[in-house]
This record gives sequence, C-alpha cells and structure tokens, in this order.
Amino acid sequence: METTMKSDNDLSGNCGDIYRLAEELKMQERKIMDFSTPSNPLGVSKKIKTELRKHLKYLHTYPDPEAERLKKRLAQYYDIAAETILCGSGSTELIHLLARVLKPGRVLIPAPTFPEYERACYISCSPKFMYYRLREENNFDIDPDEFIKTMEENLPIGERQDLNLSFTRQSPSCDMVFLCNPNNPTGRLLKRDDIKKIADTAKKLGYYLVVDEAFIDFCPDDSVIKDVADNPYLIVLRSMSSFYALSGLRLGYGVFPPQLGESLKRSKEPWTVNSLAQRAAVMALKDKVFRKETFRSMQDEKKYLEKNFRKIGMEFLPSAANFYLVKIDNAEVCQQLRKKGILLCDCSHFRGLDSTYRRIAVKSHRENAILIRELTKIFSYRG
Amino acid sequence: METTMKSDNDLSGNCGDIYRLAEELKMQERKIMDFSTPSNPLGVSKKIKTELRKHLKYLHTYPDPEAERLKKRLAQYYDIAAETILCGSGSTELIHLLARVLKPGRVLIPAPTFPEYERACYISCSPKFMYYRLREENNFDIDPDEFIKTMEENLPIGERQDLNLSFTRQSPSCDMVFLCNPNNPTGRLLKRDDIKKIADTAKKLGYYLVVDEAFIDFCPDDSVIKDVADNPYLIVLRSMSSFYALSGLRLGYGVFPPQLGESLKRSKEPWTVNSLAQRAAVMALKDKVFRKETFRSMQDEKKYLEKNFRKIGMEFLPSAANFYLVKIDNAEVCQQLRKKGILLCDCSHFRGLDSTYRRIAVKSHRENAILIRELTKIFSYRG
Repeated sequence: METTMKSDNDLSGNCGDIYRLAEELKMQERKIMDFSTPSNPLGVSKKIKTELRKHLKYLHTYPDPEAERLKKRLAQYYDIAAETILCGSGSTELIHLLARVLKPGRVLIPAPTFPEYERACYISCSPKFMYYRLREENNFDIDPDEFIKTMEENLPIGERQDLNLSFTRQSPSCDMVFLCNPNNPTGRLLKRDDIKKIADTAKKLGYYLVVDEAFIDFCPDDSVIKDVADNPYLIVLRSMSSFYALSGLRLGYGVFPPQLGESLKRSKEPWTVNSLAQRAAVMALKDKVFRKETFRSMQDEKKYLEKNFRKIGMEFLPSAANFYLVKIDNAEVCQQLRKKGILLCDCSHFRGLDSTYRRIAVKSHRENAILIRELTKIFSYRG
Repeated sequence: METTMKSDNDLSGNCGDIYRLAEELKMQERKIMDFSTPSNPLGVSKKIKTELRKHLKYLHTYPDPEAERLKKRLAQYYDIAAETILCGSGSTELIHLLARVLKPGRVLIPAPTFPEYERACYISCSPKFMYYRLREENNFDIDPDEFIKTMEENLPIGERQDLNLSFTRQSPSCDMVFLCNPNNPTGRLLKRDDIKKIADTAKKLGYYLVVDEAFIDFCPDDSVIKDVADNPYLIVLRSMSSFYALSGLRLGYGVFPPQLGESLKRSKEPWTVNSLAQRAAVMALKDKVFRKETFRSMQDEKKYLEKNFRKIGMEFLPSAANFYLVKIDNAEVCQQLRKKGILLCDCSHFRGLDSTYRRIAVKSHRENAILIRELTKIFSYRG
C-alpha cells in the first residue's frame, strides 16, 4: 500500500456534464443520454412532481434554514434523533463544511473514491493525505483488517487531545478518514459489520470517520446511520440525488455526533437547502411504492446490463449500486458513443484510475438497450 | 464614530421565520403574513412558474456547475463579461466564499447592516472588525466623505502587498469593506457617484470593496455592476430573491475582478445552484413585463403605506427598497400582530439596533391593507 502525500488543485471531474456535450453536438440537453451520472431510471416520482407543482407559488418565502420538518421526518424514518441531523445542498455541502470545521491534520482516503473529499480538505487546510490504494486484482475491495491496520499504524498524532470544537482556526488538528459505501466509482460494498469494526477503531484512536452513504439506498441493510448514536467519531452522510433522481434539486443530509453537529451549525451557511428540495425530500420519504418499484426495476436492468456486458465481452465490476465500473481500453469507443450523444463517465479524475476506466449508470430499459446496441455495433466492428 | 472590535457567535437573526411562528400558532405556513422578508408582492412570475413546471421531470440530472447559460444571459443583460460572473446559492454563498478565500485581516462594515458579512468573516478567520456607525439623526445615511476618511485613517496594513491569491491559508492578510446598497435594514441608498468615489478609494488603498446590491433592482441606475471591469478591488453581489420573489429557490450572483474570480472558482463548492434556480433566473431576465409591473405596483403600495404610517403616527425611514425601517417602542404591538399571524422583522439582530426597530416589507395591497388596519386598531386603542 502506498502512502504518498499529494495534492492537486483540480480534482473535480466532468461527469454529468451534459451541458458541454449538448453544446458541442448542438443537441438539446435533454436529448443527451447521460450514463455518466447514476440516477434512478424511474426519474422524479409523480408524487414529488405533484408536490413541487403545488409549491411553486410559495417560492417568495425563504426556505426553513433549519429544515425542521424534513429533519423530523428523517428522524422518524430512521428512528434516530432529529437533533443529530443536518441538511445540506447535496451531501457535498456537508463534506466541505466538515473539512472546514474539523481542519484535519491528516486524512486517510481510499483511492479511487469520490474526489470531493480530497478537494474539500485541500481547500480547507491542505492536510497530509494518505491513500489506501484499492487494487484491481481484489475487485477494488477494501480489506477491513488491512484498512484498520493502516489506521493504527499511520494516523494517531501523538497523544489524542480532547477536541475543542470552536469554529475558529485555532482548533487543534485532528485526523479524518473518508469511506464511500458503496464506493464511487467502483460500486463495491463494505458490509455493515466491517464498517462498524472500522468505526470502532476510529473511536478508539479518536479520529473522525466519515461514511458517505450516497448510494446505500440500494442496499439499506448495510447502512451505519443508526450507529452514530453510539460513536462520537462516526459521521454518516446521505444523499437524495441518486435514489430519488433529485440531483438537480440538491438535497443531502448527515448524521453527526452532537458536539460536532453544534460546531457545524455555527459555521453553516444559512438557507442552503432550497424550499423545493425540502418539500421533495419529505414527500420522497413517504413514497413506499416508489422505493419498491425502484428495487424491482433496478434488479431487472442490472441483470440485463450484466448479461449483455458479458455477451459483448466488456469487463465490468459487480456492483452494489446503480452503476458499473467498466474497462474500455480503446478511447475510440467512448468517442463514438459521445458523437451519438451517449455520455459515459471518464474515470481519469478518480485518483488511481485512468480514462480506460468508465463509470456507466444503470438507466431505463430503453436507454440501456440503446447503449448495448451501440456498444455491440462498435465491439463487433472492432472485433 | 466608534471603531470598537467585537465578535459574537450568533449574528444571524430570525427574520422570515414563518416556520416557527406557524408552529407556535398551529397555523399553516402559507397563512402567515410575512412582512419580515422583503419580497416582490407580485410573487413568482407566471412565466417562471411555467418554465419550472416544464423542468420538473429533468431534476435527475445535476445542475450545470458553471451555470454557463445563466452567466451568458446575465452578461448580455448587463453588457459585462460572462467570465467575471459567478453564481451562488443566494448571494449568501458568495459572501461566505469571499470571506473564506480572502481571509481579511480587517473588515470595515456599517452598523446596522446585513449581519451575514460579519458572520461570514468571523467564521472564516476572526478578523478585526471596524464599525462605521450609522446615526439615526442622519437617517442612518452613510456620509461618503466621512466613510472614505475612515478607510484612509484606519485600514491600510502598512505597505500594501501584491496579493497572492492562492486558496490556502497562507494568503497574506487583506482588508475588506462591505456596503449594502440600498442598505438592509434601512433601505437608504448611496448614489452611484458616491459608491464610485468609495470604490476609487478602495482601489487606491488596495482593499476589497464588496457592494451587495441585493435590493438595487428597485433603483437600477445606482448599480456599480459595470464598474467592476475598471476596478480590480470592486466586487458586486446581486440576488434574485427579493425582486423576483425567488428567495425559496436560492439564486444570487456576483461580478468579480478576474484574478479574484479565478481564486473563488478554485475554492467553490460544486453544484450549489440548483437547476430550477438556473432556469428561473434565465426566464426572469427575459421578463420585461414583470419588471414594469413590479415598478408600478411597488410605487403604488409604497405611497399607500407611507400615507398610512403617517396617519397612524408611526415613525418610518424613507426607503429606496421594498421595505421600511420603522420604530415601534411598545413590544406589545408586535406581539399582538404575531398572534394574528402577522410577522415583522425584529431588528435587534442588526448591530446598532434594538427590538424597538422593525423592518416591514412592502407586500400586496390586500396584505398591506390588513397590516394598516391592524396597526390602526392597536395604535388607536393605545392612543
């Protein structure tokens, strides 16, 4: 395992950038087939659309900065304390807020993973980064024991201090660990017991473990959202972007240990969660039918894609989420797809990957079939 | 003029908090008459509502993180360079971003003014604050020459350094001045020539002048938005909240000197401006009829309110914006209004004011008439 320290300025990628592709192809944005962003193929639920339509005339009032109603609903939904929840403009806001408030001295992150953890910490305080390199020969899986060993061997900054969580720069330095579960862009899942073991280590050693569960709605039993209550060093982030097809509206939330939550609130920008996002989220939580339908269609489409990836002979990684990491050695393939308005996510902006790796989202059957048809054409032509 | 340095933890107020009042009164939020938040009484324009309704099914895609289309429209609208514009989740995001990136050593702000300038700087780097106290006997007006004198006498940190705008903490300290024009909560306007004089001084002395024009759409000729091009120390912030009745959707933007703009982009959180806000803003700029109608109705309603404030004998400050600072010595008055679901803004969270000052937004004729009726009842009963 490498533990090189490196820091780049530009760590953000261009996935989901239908806007530039639409301009390039002189196409309407909505005509782009965006396989680069994992999103529920069912789209925005009818109930949410109805709710939003009703609320359009109340946009003149400021959103509730506390998002109290949403927090109550989330608390009921997960059976956790509402006071431990904070909502954000996507979980991205909360990642940046955490980095700013904690100002970690050292940060351990798997590679590859969502680049915004590193970017947020870099912007906040340029900490030392340590990368836990995920190996392709291990399916890019995290080995929990090996990960724990890395934590134990590399991280503790001498004697642990009780953190005085003021929100000025004078906070003593702390250590942070980020885990995305299932991981982005690999789709690989750590089971709840393994995450809990890692969380126990974090507690023992006194550093903050941020578990980003942006895609865990597809495998909810492995969430550690309820474990935050027993662990003052565990933070869980969630997002409504992917499962509820609400990326455009920006809604994320997090569950935080109480003392840390208070510090975050003091530093949080006000009114970041717009009122439509709050409405949509409340409605989303009520919509059992949509969830059931999502699981069913996701299962069908994943089977369909996997079967056809195999048929074409395209390498892919089995995934717990609504996307696949695939290997496409010939850049020409993606160029040909692009020309047809089919966008895959170029993974070169994920540390440890290059552009021979692409992330492909599971989309509607119609779109998946088109993708497979186009891939089949290209692969058989090249074959 | 006092130049005391002070820093509080909680500088945010509770204006616009219809949510807590609705809960207290067991009323529906939309039944609250919110005079505490200045917002266009015409509400969200029909064209915007139609546009948003069409876009509800595309919420599964991420918003354009660059907001390119909106920036192009804004550039055309104001005849400025698109590259100098940055959009935010309300101008509040940009206030915080500026404070974080510039990390000013000293900050000059009028008192009273919008508290978020002070809060943002305090959170970012606890700078030294200097307050330019606005005096009631001067209608809370800024005297431009006196303000310039304060800048010249108090601020320069020795020799000016060329700022190396990296986005790490190591940036050398700079000085910042905030001006809200028209000022919140007084509604008092500095004419464009006066702002330009202050901006020239900022340029000469080398500190950043942030002019927050959140309410300037009501007096657009006094905007200095086009002057940013000639002044590397001038920053102009704008908001679509009040004039376009879009507070709930969160849309602000700023015009920045190019070098500073680049630094801000490197530190900016991605996807903060949701896609509905971007759509609404593009449509808003096209809607000449709505703007014309707004000016007309605002003029009528302001006349109506002023006439009746005088009749009741309630002290108010003539205002260039869509709200009034009024003096209500008896707290009982506001309590009685609250009980009826009528919310005024308690100005005690504005530095230099106390709760005998209230900010009253101009609302629709129906609502204004109800307010006047209730105030008349209370005042004549007390009278």
